[in-house]
Amino acid sequence: MSAGSVLVPDFLTPDGLPDCVSYRSGEVPDDATCSRVGFFVPDYIDAPNPEWMQKLPNLEVVQLPTVGFDAALNHLPAGVTLCNAAGVHEQSTAELAVGSIIARWRGIDRAARDMTVGRWDHRRGRALQEATAVIIGAGGVGTRVASALTALGARPQLVGQTARAGVLPALELPQLLPVADIVVLAVPLTARTEGMVDRAFLSMLRDGALLVNVARGSVIVTDDLLAELPRIEAILDVVDPEPLPPEHALWSAPGVLITPHIGGDTDAFPRLARELIGAQVRRWRSGEGLLNVVRGR
Amino acid sequence: MSAGSVLVPDFLTPDGLPDCVSYRSGEVPDDATCSRVGFFVPDYIDAPNPEWMQKLPNLEVVQLPTVGFDAALNHLPAGVTLCNAAGVHEQSTAELAVGSIIARWRGIDRAARDMTVGRWDHRRGRALQEATAVIIGAGGVGTRVASALTALGARPQLVGQTARAGVLPALELPQLLPVADIVVLAVPLTARTEGMVDRAFLSMLRDGALLVNVARGSVIVTDDLLAELPRIEAILDVVDPEPLPPEHALWSAPGVLITPHIGGDTDAFPRLARELIGAQVRRWRSGEGLLNVVRGR
Repeated sequence: MSAGSVLVPDFLTPDGLPDCVSYRSGEVPDDATCSRVGFFVPDYIDAPNPEWMQKLPNLEVVQLPTVGFDAALNHLPAGVTLCNAAGVHEQSTAELAVGSIIARWRGIDRAARDMTVGRWDHRRGRALQEATAVIIGAGGVGTRVASALTALGARPQLVGQTARAGVLPALELPQLLPVADIVVLAVPLTARTEGMVDRAFLSMLRDGALLVNVARGSVIVTDDLLAELPRIEAILDVVDPEPLPPEHALWSAPGVLITPHIGGDTDAFPRLARELIGAQVRRWRSGEGLLNVVRGR
Repeated sequence: MSAGSVLVPDFLTPDGLPDCVSYRSGEVPDDATCSRVGFFVPDYIDAPNPEWMQKLPNLEVVQLPTVGFDAALNHLPAGVTLCNAAGVHEQSTAELAVGSIIARWRGIDRAARDMTVGRWDHRRGRALQEATAVIIGAGGVGTRVASALTALGARPQLVGQTARAGVLPALELPQLLPVADIVVLAVPLTARTEGMVDRAFLSMLRDGALLVNVARGSVIVTDDLLAELPRIEAILDVVDPEPLPPEHALWSAPGVLITPHIGGDTDAFPRLARELIGAQVRRWRSGEGLLNVVRGR
């Protein structure tokens, strides 16, 4: 049984939640409010505020609105439980990955630019049908990307840290990467995956391969990727640095499609996030075990 | 048993086909060559040449490289058999439809334009997850669109001229259209479907609905669509007129994504088309029944 208030962004506040303080992006609560907070939901990626954790002396639980939790770990006070939003973003992220692959291979990005000058420029595209895809990361995003690609006639192979049914181990990447038409990055950012896609990794990709990053920007060494374009192509929903500064070389690099970290952010997100937050607060108050615990109890 | 030459575009010529004349786009064969042709494959949509049928006095079979056959019918000499390329383009067309829906709902088109000025503009998108879709046309394209949307968590409903398992009849459209988030046009162009999407049809769509045309441009009355934008949005891979002239109002209409009739045109197309043409020529020469006959024997 836990008492204390719930501090939660206004657009993620479940209906009818008792003892709940909604906040607007950037609006810092006063000290009296902060002192009562036991359950904190940080803001979404546009207005990150993990440093608020330090201002909440009676904090017990941090429920992130994201699946990724790398940024929050650095701010997490000792003894506080950290939960992520597994289940909330994965389908939207998988949708974006698949839609972006089709957009790039069919030239929807070029067509969108051609519209601004009224140019009708018919060109042949690449088909997903029979394309081979290696999906690195066999969690919620990776498995959903694999299902969607299969339904579209492609041939995906999931790769995880450890082998299991339908998942090959990472040590087989040197055999898998050279024959992949598409490589999707769907891993969490950890010490093992940070900088994983470097010169050595990229050199294993075949000419014309399409690298898709819906994980975290720093999984790829940006300069190493720039050196390989346009021998390979890339779809980047996440980049390093992020947000990408206006003058960065990636914006105009050949064979690249950049989207502004929109993977999990659809109208499905606030609905599913409110459901999760409501359920987690009920569990916390009643002393039940929390879901999606990534650090702590 | 049929003799005569096969006249076929160079890039669609199967390997090792005997008595075969390959032509390049726009290169008209001489009269002696024309007089021997019994089996003709017209050029693809960039260089239409259905009028060549009239120059081939011994023509028996026209094998189109497209699924649509509306343009060929007007030129077909009496007694000549017309076959389409059913099976060759459908998967690629369905891929484009699904990829374009995701591109539009997630703002990949806007992101592609933002890249040209280095703008990182994060916005929330719409999710396919739980979206309702009405797919008009339950042939090869429509059924493949439905499968892909189902795999992505959407709820598609196929509509055909006549009801059958999994397909509702067109007379139910007045009940279906007002609750659809997405309406996909995947019908052949016929007297029944030409101009089908007019003011009355469009008025049944809910605010914010997305109309997707991967059929033929003139299924939609362009001026009626223009009058409804941006109350609804539209993805147009085919338009009327086509190609769309540089100064046409559709290019800059709000809420529209235009691609230059690339639905069936991927690297899968020449491969699958060559397989089909080789099989059809063998059937024609040996007197077996032809596949995909849309007019004639």
